[in-house]
Amino acid sequence: MKLVRVKKGDKIFEGYLLPRYETEDKNYVTIKLKNGYNVGFKIDEIEIEEIGDVKIEKKYLSEKLEQKESLPKIMIVGTGGTISSKIDYETGAVKPAFTTEEILRNNPELMNIARIDTEVLFNILSENMKPIHWKKIARRVAEILNSGYYGVIIAHGTDTMHFTSAALSFMLKNLYKPVVLVGSQRSSDRPSTDAFLNLYSATIVATSDIAEVVVVMHSSSNDDSCYIHRGTRVRKMHTSRRDAFKSINSLPIGIVENGKIKTFIPYRKRKEGEEVYVDDELNENVFLLKIFPGIDKEIVAKIVEKFDGIVIEGTGLGHAPEDLLDVFKWGIEQGKIICMTSQTLYGRVNMNVYSTGRKLLSIGVIPLEDMLPEVAYVKLMYVLGKTKDYNKVRELMLKNIAGEISERTIYI
Amino acid sequence: MKLVRVKKGDKIFEGYLLPRYETEDKNYVTIKLKNGYNVGFKIDEIEIEEIGDVKIEKKYLSEKLEQKESLPKIMIVGTGGTISSKIDYETGAVKPAFTTEEILRNNPELMNIARIDTEVLFNILSENMKPIHWKKIARRVAEILNSGYYGVIIAHGTDTMHFTSAALSFMLKNLYKPVVLVGSQRSSDRPSTDAFLNLYSATIVATSDIAEVVVVMHSSSNDDSCYIHRGTRVRKMHTSRRDAFKSINSLPIGIVENGKIKTFIPYRKRKEGEEVYVDDELNENVFLLKIFPGIDKEIVAKIVEKFDGIVIEGTGLGHAPEDLLDVFKWGIEQGKIICMTSQTLYGRVNMNVYSTGRKLLSIGVIPLEDMLPEVAYVKLMYVLGKTKDYNKVRELMLKNIAGEISERTIYI
Repeated sequence: MKLVRVKKGDKIFEGYLLPRYETEDKNYVTIKLKNGYNVGFKIDEIEIEEIGDVKIEKKYLSEKLEQKESLPKIMIVGTGGTISSKIDYETGAVKPAFTTEEILRNNPELMNIARIDTEVLFNILSENMKPIHWKKIARRVAEILNSGYYGVIIAHGTDTMHFTSAALSFMLKNLYKPVVLVGSQRSSDRPSTDAFLNLYSATIVATSDIAEVVVVMHSSSNDDSCYIHRGTRVRKMHTSRRDAFKSINSLPIGIVENGKIKTFIPYRKRKEGEEVYVDDELNENVFLLKIFPGIDKEIVAKIVEKFDGIVIEGTGLGHAPEDLLDVFKWGIEQGKIICMTSQTLYGRVNMNVYSTGRKLLSIGVIPLEDMLPEVAYVKLMYVLGKTKDYNKVRELMLKNIAGEISERTIYI
Repeated sequence: MKLVRVKKGDKIFEGYLLPRYETEDKNYVTIKLKNGYNVGFKIDEIEIEEIGDVKIEKKYLSEKLEQKESLPKIMIVGTGGTISSKIDYETGAVKPAFTTEEILRNNPELMNIARIDTEVLFNILSENMKPIHWKKIARRVAEILNSGYYGVIIAHGTDTMHFTSAALSFMLKNLYKPVVLVGSQRSSDRPSTDAFLNLYSATIVATSDIAEVVVVMHSSSNDDSCYIHRGTRVRKMHTSRRDAFKSINSLPIGIVENGKIKTFIPYRKRKEGEEVYVDDELNENVFLLKIFPGIDKEIVAKIVEKFDGIVIEGTGLGHAPEDLLDVFKWGIEQGKIICMTSQTLYGRVNMNVYSTGRKLLSIGVIPLEDMLPEVAYVKLMYVLGKTKDYNKVRELMLKNIAGEISERTIYI
């Protein structure tokens, strides 16, 4: 790798010249600064000179690893994503990096918390996850927990981690051990990586008494603590920050700070001797429909016609343009299930306040309280996997199954 | 109206019995508590007794209103929504309440800031707004400003206020006076209303030197200050809170507190003697497509086939499942414009980091930096109203026209 000095105007940058990706703009070069950040420059705006040639240092220790037999045994399951990868700076490609050896050599402090096994279930970027992957993860997690592991960590891409956490929350039944999803926003070979703290905190949670499906990620942009988010209350709220994941309409279950867990709200407790089982019958014929001014009625009609279930991501308290009413009415008459959530994300739908909401209610649209649209989408697949009967679907959609919905609070 | 006492378990509530809405559940009654909140009760869970009969007090003053001729003249344009309404407690219906007389009698302090005229342009709930309404508002605002008014306030429903503010930001050209959108989350006859402070703050902004399209709404749930949000940077982020509106990927322009404006970032300044004009050619054949795991390829293909422009609300840094690539590629080959934003809302898309992003870039998907999906949707209509040429559209979409996009910042 070449060490270069780049001059742009009166600013000077030093760093390693990165190889170009296959599809990258040929007018730009990218430099990896010494602090780990990558900066792109337009070639005709800079002067560039080579200032040396460096070898990438090997971090790996040479002594043999020894895990402590007395500690609780947990399994880290790799499914792909940044946390399971490192960048190959010679080719620019992202490579999977996921052997127990590699993880423990990079995170030796994990060996003081647990006895760690790892396996790779599959290796895909989370934007390519589909419901079938949720099922594969659920089934494997159940096998692992029932074979005596104390907890499971799932290393997962961050893009759709909150969809997977919701799916696992509904599918894993009689769950009395921790199932911890963890990802990283920046790969583990970058100095700004969040991977180490996230994995360290996830390991603490996996050996704790929190027997739920949770997402453990940075609580702030400082590299000092992680939140434990309930799997049905969490959403990725930033493209790149390390604290991208936020609990919405709920506090996080707790925080991991200085190696200790502090909890904020009630949670399900660990119970030994229980067998987890998987309830993964899904009806995948569901659509998540975001509403916007001027949305085309013909496409909405096609969607209502094609799918068994539609989760509307409405405006405000749970609204949609009035001219879509007859389409939704027709759909419900055909036996389709139509539910309402809000694109504001925060807050609770309340369709009794304005006439549009009351009309939607009167035709049978189901108001999903304070459930996130993404969680509602997953839940509707799960519920329609059991029944298509309107009253039963309504009852299940409005019943709190995995912390996805909270009692209406009246603030007096 | 009947004053009643409701007993539920060991709790007692007193308030006015509200009439039922036409479509409301017949098993519930709603009581308006003395603090203004409405609480619903299931009939078979409560005991209810009548404790008196009250008259609704008339708040109106009897003396004649006199506006100060020396103050700058502003126009309040009603378009509908909660801020333009009050609940009729006899019938349960929401009624428009929008005469100058009524506004000034309810907000006499406005007469110390400006000379106020009002008019009703139309009266619709904002979930029913369409691009044609944006145009009507833009044209009327231009007429008003060019006829000598110092500023305009647009009273608007909150559901889609951020779409309208984005549309006006692109359509109003050579704008050197304030255009202030204001709404309320709770109607003005409720004690918890935000309407008074919002309107008061909007009036201060309308007479200020901030010559942009802005949204003025509560800055916190306290009733003490309002943020001035740039029209292209704001989004409704809560179903019901008074501080539902947030500036995203930008600070607000400023805050109105104790009757004074404090600004945080640079803004366009008032300039007298300028004529505003309207550039409202829109291509409405645009779709805002939210991505989710398992999204149906056939429907995506129909959308790509039907529309001239598609704004993808992708996952993470700007991703979509790889199996949609060939659909998008086909669309772009047919001359469709496909742009990328992120459903995380916060942060900037960066499609160079992972292979999925690079593939999307290589087929010609346009990465919209840190633009909000809703703003990108409105902007693509506006840009496609001018040209369908890929290179020109790309250039305009990536050019900062109204504060909707910011320079890429490298944090070193």
